[in-house]
Amino acid sequence: MHKSGASSSAKLIVMSPIGVLRTPFKHAAGTPVQGVSGRSAEGVVELHAEYVAGLRDLAGFERIWLIYFLDRASDVQMKVQPFMDTTARGVFATRSPVRPNHIGISVVRLLGIEENRLLVADVDMLDLTPLLDIKPYVPAFDSFSPSLAGWYADKSPSGVVADDRFEAGSFDSEDSN
Amino acid sequence: MHKSGASSSAKLIVMSPIGVLRTPFKHAAGTPVQGVSGRSAEGVVELHAEYVAGLRDLAGFERIWLIYFLDRASDVQMKVQPFMDTTARGVFATRSPVRPNHIGISVVRLLGIEENRLLVADVDMLDLTPLLDIKPYVPAFDSFSPSLAGWYADKSPSGVVADDRFEAGSFDSEDSN
Repeated sequence: MHKSGASSSAKLIVMSPIGVLRTPFKHAAGTPVQGVSGRSAEGVVELHAEYVAGLRDLAGFERIWLIYFLDRASDVQMKVQPFMDTTARGVFATRSPVRPNHIGISVVRLLGIEENRLLVADVDMLDLTPLLDIKPYVPAFDSFSPSLAGWYADKSPSGVVADDRFEAGSFDSEDSN
Repeated sequence: MHKSGASSSAKLIVMSPIGVLRTPFKHAAGTPVQGVSGRSAEGVVELHAEYVAGLRDLAGFERIWLIYFLDRASDVQMKVQPFMDTTARGVFATRSPVRPNHIGISVVRLLGIEENRLLVADVDMLDLTPLLDIKPYVPAFDSFSPSLAGWYADKSPSGVVADDRFEAGSFDSEDSN
């Protein structure tokens, strides 16, 4: 949960997981830092039954966004040393999980849909991560080739895996098993 | 807020806005359906002061992700008729705001940073939308050219604007002015 000093005037927003992500990664150490890290790991999106009607037409997409809650991230930090770098960076200039609100976004390949289960590839989330949303990957909205990519410009995620530097306790392991 | 029948066993997730988005769009009607709709509208991200340290190194990126709460979306629907289509689609196969948890993601161009204010272009959010996260746009993670883009394949957002079909009341207009 978000524990840093939020504005007291800001209203809180309450979200409810729509499902859970099943992946081969039980702990941060060894998990790909992004789905493109080269392992093509497969996973399963287990959507809660009441949302299955919302999957209609999704099968026509090759890639989809998964938006999820980084439930095992340690507390919020404004400066972080990313897995792909040796220098501390502002958290908003990284994809580190220790960001405010702990929201993660990942593009995965959609391999198939069976009722409430989506088989996907290129996963980089921890097993049992709470799912918040699914969106289609639409090149016209999402695909850009910026000429400036900051400190990532000369870095490659290929083969890079995480360690436990950003990992804390589990959010809901007791009722997700 | 999410009002559909969430699993009672799922734990709720509480988020706190990290800032607010200022844009030219006061109502859904007439707002671009995506930043790429062709208007290149400019906006300002007003980050709460306690998060400014997290902006370090962000200026080197040409494009950034804004992740925000679609606070004026009407209640959750599993089938929607998107602005760019004439057929009802499953909500997860669209970018409609009436999705569970009401999370929006948009790529914007970063024009400049002045203390807690980010000047951005290609905005498609309503004015005073609560901001949840900022991430760098990293082509290696985010830029793909899928061969299948579902029902979007033969659609173009160019010039398409929204109407009020998904709009409800305001989330926090009374304390954001």
